[in-house]
Amino acid sequence: MTNKELNRYDRAGHPLATVVDCGGVEIGGGMFQIIAGPCSVESEEQLMCTARAVKAAGATLLRGGAFKPRTSPRSFQGLGAEGIRLLLEAKRETGLPVVSELMNINHLELFNDVDVIQIGARNMQNFDLLKEIAAHSKKPVLLKRGFSATIGELLASAEYLLEGGNPNVVLCERGIRTFVHETRNTPDLVAVPVLHERTHLPVIVDPSHATGVARLVKPVACAAAAIGADGLIVEVHNDPAHALCDGNQSLTPEQFSDMVRAVNLILPNACK
Amino acid sequence: MTNKELNRYDRAGHPLATVVDCGGVEIGGGMFQIIAGPCSVESEEQLMCTARAVKAAGATLLRGGAFKPRTSPRSFQGLGAEGIRLLLEAKRETGLPVVSELMNINHLELFNDVDVIQIGARNMQNFDLLKEIAAHSKKPVLLKRGFSATIGELLASAEYLLEGGNPNVVLCERGIRTFVHETRNTPDLVAVPVLHERTHLPVIVDPSHATGVARLVKPVACAAAAIGADGLIVEVHNDPAHALCDGNQSLTPEQFSDMVRAVNLILPNACK
Amino acid sequence: MTNKELNRYDRAGHPLATVVDCGGVEIGGGMFQIIAGPCSVESEEQLMCTARAVKAAGATLLRGGAFKPRTSPRSFQGLGAEGIRLLLEAKRETGLPVVSELMNINHLELFNDVDVIQIGARNMQNFDLLKEIAAHSKKPVLLKRGFSATIGELLASAEYLLEGGNPNVVLCERGIRTFVHETRNTPDLVAVPVLHERTHLPVIVDPSHATGVARLVKPVACAAAAIGADGLIVEVHNDPAHALCDGNQSLTPEQFSDMVRAVNLILPNACK
Amino acid sequence: MTNKELNRYDRAGHPLATVVDCGGVEIGGGMFQIIAGPCSVESEEQLMCTARAVKAAGATLLRGGAFKPRTSPRSFQGLGAEGIRLLLEAKRETGLPVVSELMNINHLELFNDVDVIQIGARNMQNFDLLKEIAAHSKKPVLLKRGFSATIGELLASAEYLLEGGNPNVVLCERGIRTFVHETRNTPDLVAVPVLHERTHLPVIVDPSHATGVARLVKPVACAAAAIGADGLIVEVHNDPAHALCDGNQSLTPEQFSDMVRAVNLILPNACK
Repeated sequence: MTNKELNRYDRAGHPLATVVDCGGVEIGGGMFQIIAGPCSVESEEQLMCTARAVKAAGATLLRGGAFKPRTSPRSFQGLGAEGIRLLLEAKRETGLPVVSELMNINHLELFNDVDVIQIGARNMQNFDLLKEIAAHSKKPVLLKRGFSATIGELLASAEYLLEGGNPNVVLCERGIRTFVHETRNTPDLVAVPVLHERTHLPVIVDPSHATGVARLVKPVACAAAAIGADGLIVEVHNDPAHALCDGNQSLTPEQFSDMVRAVNLILPNACK
Repeated sequence: MTNKELNRYDRAGHPLATVVDCGGVEIGGGMFQIIAGPCSVESEEQLMCTARAVKAAGATLLRGGAFKPRTSPRSFQGLGAEGIRLLLEAKRETGLPVVSELMNINHLELFNDVDVIQIGARNMQNFDLLKEIAAHSKKPVLLKRGFSATIGELLASAEYLLEGGNPNVVLCERGIRTFVHETRNTPDLVAVPVLHERTHLPVIVDPSHATGVARLVKPVACAAAAIGADGLIVEVHNDPAHALCDGNQSLTPEQFSDMVRAVNLILPNACK
Repeated sequence: MTNKELNRYDRAGHPLATVVDCGGVEIGGGMFQIIAGPCSVESEEQLMCTARAVKAAGATLLRGGAFKPRTSPRSFQGLGAEGIRLLLEAKRETGLPVVSELMNINHLELFNDVDVIQIGARNMQNFDLLKEIAAHSKKPVLLKRGFSATIGELLASAEYLLEGGNPNVVLCERGIRTFVHETRNTPDLVAVPVLHERTHLPVIVDPSHATGVARLVKPVACAAAAIGADGLIVEVHNDPAHALCDGNQSLTPEQFSDMVRAVNLILPNACK
Repeated sequence: MTNKELNRYDRAGHPLATVVDCGGVEIGGGMFQIIAGPCSVESEEQLMCTARAVKAAGATLLRGGAFKPRTSPRSFQGLGAEGIRLLLEAKRETGLPVVSELMNINHLELFNDVDVIQIGARNMQNFDLLKEIAAHSKKPVLLKRGFSATIGELLASAEYLLEGGNPNVVLCERGIRTFVHETRNTPDLVAVPVLHERTHLPVIVDPSHATGVARLVKPVACAAAAIGADGLIVEVHNDPAHALCDGNQSLTPEQFSDMVRAVNLILPNACK
């Protein structure tokens, strides 16, 4: 059963698609989910308002950052423990399982009631963090591809989690860094079928970071659904113009609702 | 009506989508077309066999290279004039309008009965060729994006044609060069909605060159349809294993037929 | 003196070049240093032999990895605490100050007698690690540029250290990821004068990782010296063919000695 | 003597460095030359003034564009035949051999007295132009690397010239397109030793296009000399602030003189 030549992520050794249970909601193997919510948890009102709206529009998980990896130390760094507390309150109210980014293993116990741990693009090769998460938690991990990581490197990072004892890994394509500057990043959508050939793990797409432009989120979401992605993670804000972070790429609840409708029309005929 | 600030390609000055008549087949403004055929015209049998097959599967234009831009001077350079002759024979037999690449203005008269002149990625910034085509022909031009051209540069090259007097320009996204080497190029599908915002010209996608891998052509074609492309150009060969050029990325007629079916299921719900 | 508009790294607010004291050896402001040693500490014999050789050839600091960030969990991960112990033994014997990579803040006390803490390219945006180092140590930090980080992002990461209270930051250009695959990375040497314009912090170059090819280390080292770098960090191994890590890019002691000689001829006429 | 396995550019089949005679001035095999002059020939006064100045500062060939490949059709396209006429006048007055870009084979006879034909980066894969030049001229060709061409592709383009019968090819590294936007392009200086390993053809560097910033030309020129380049091609303008093209990257005569001095100090100790 164990084969030294194969990695644990290899489809060759595990032909069936892995389905990851994310707080009662399944991703992978034909189960398509939409994770939505604000880039950062900013306040109770902002989060509750957004959470209710994304649930009403059809999101099945809620995202919200409490610890934010910001390029500059002078940018808003997130509400921290208070952000997690608000997220759990939104979970109680809406019933949506919640996803939040972990940047530091010392924060792990704050995530006890968080359903999915997100590892951000900048930490995809923070191997010590991956090892420690795998050692201490069996919670689903949403592993975002580094913005210049090859597909092989993304899979090798997943292997740190799988080998460390956590089999519940969801991969996320979130755009790569190229010479193109009309968009913040270039969505590498063909990574979805390439990953599906090479691994049994589910693969979702983040059209918000991949483009950096709210107007482009819907078309990229439709393309991601068509190409066979197992889900989406989308930034939605009740008032994007006043968001503390990533307002340019955040959808309003109305735009999000329109996107969900468009994606749902594509899904029955997605490429298999 | 003329505005010095605007380029001729700008959507701002021309809100209606341009529809380009390609030998009786219309591309743009809601008219989606599939161009298919071999990378290179290799022989009468190869071309006729492939042409009949792609027509039967639903292609509405036939492609085939007679003059081939090859990285090495020792690679097969195409059949030249004889390739054009065979292509026109296939046109007569199948009734499909034909698309072929022009690399040298001195060959223009050979293209008299060719319906669409293709400008390849490597010649996207061959400004003299663009000027001369515009000066001597009103035929539709399929302008492929250079593999490292920004969207602004692609549009500026289109402007050479428009300003030179040829308004019949179809743009083509065919993959960009990035650090990713799991695929030959990275399909920059988000370029489709970005281009639709900025220009009234139709935009098609080439999933064959964009990926370089036959197995990935169908998923990328589906994503291109979903994201709002106005058409596809796809390499099909009756016997890819023996193709003189690009066999790895060529579909068999059966694979192409399956791709057309999949794309047609997506199209009615494509992102608008 | 404090200016809210300026970052602490800005040259505008601090025209004099910062000189960082690395265990008695100064880097910056005209002081050029060569750091050399093996990618990984593998054994006492390997390290001592290499350490003596690089000292004899003119290196002024010794490098050696004890904790290694490896793409795959199945690759050699370093000797850990034992590697640090051997490194300190080599320091005692040769008198060279030592540089080693820290990947996990919990290892900080193992680094008590290490002279310079290296933050690797993959951790350049591990903001929690940067904050914690700055909070707990005033030791010099060698901050390597992520392989897809812009210059602005490198500086913003340095700001996390400076703002956190550690002013002893040395920046390191180690190659960027591009479409070019003839070399492992593309050395972005022009980053050196660009950084010198924007910041007072010293900037060194790593020609080993930047090229991935031993034969190319000497020419890149000469170019780095000519363009105004404040130092080099070079991988040297007493037996590269049997190195557990990065053997392809490691110099033999003889090649290193030849490189030092070549660099020393350039230095007096380096671009100022 | 002919070996089917080898390309004509291969060093393996031709260990001695090729020395190209450029109107009496030799490039390659230890002969280092500096080509300088304006991006575009704009007027007699501009050209004569700049030509005299670059000669006085130590340039050994004069560059000047008469036919300009411009991204937009609305940008200044060069003086054409009149630009060539002025360039030849400057040649007569200063005695410097001249280099100018050819974009269209129909202009070839205008270049009868031009000493070196430049093929620009955008035409590096304009294979018909390469074939026609080789068929009709034995003049030295300065072949610039496309901004996204691999080293293998540059060499394959050189092979079109060599195989076509023109052995007088000088290669030019002029910066590649990467995600970095602090400079216009990223100078890929390590391409110089990589090319010297693979080919006997001379390799020069264009620090003006590689950086796009006048202040960075001198440091990159020094690094190019140190890494073993066979020459430089540098944009100089008597009044950069009023240049019709590329003023940002043009040196004043004084800056150029300072650059030549700095490069000459490096050259005797360049990496071999």
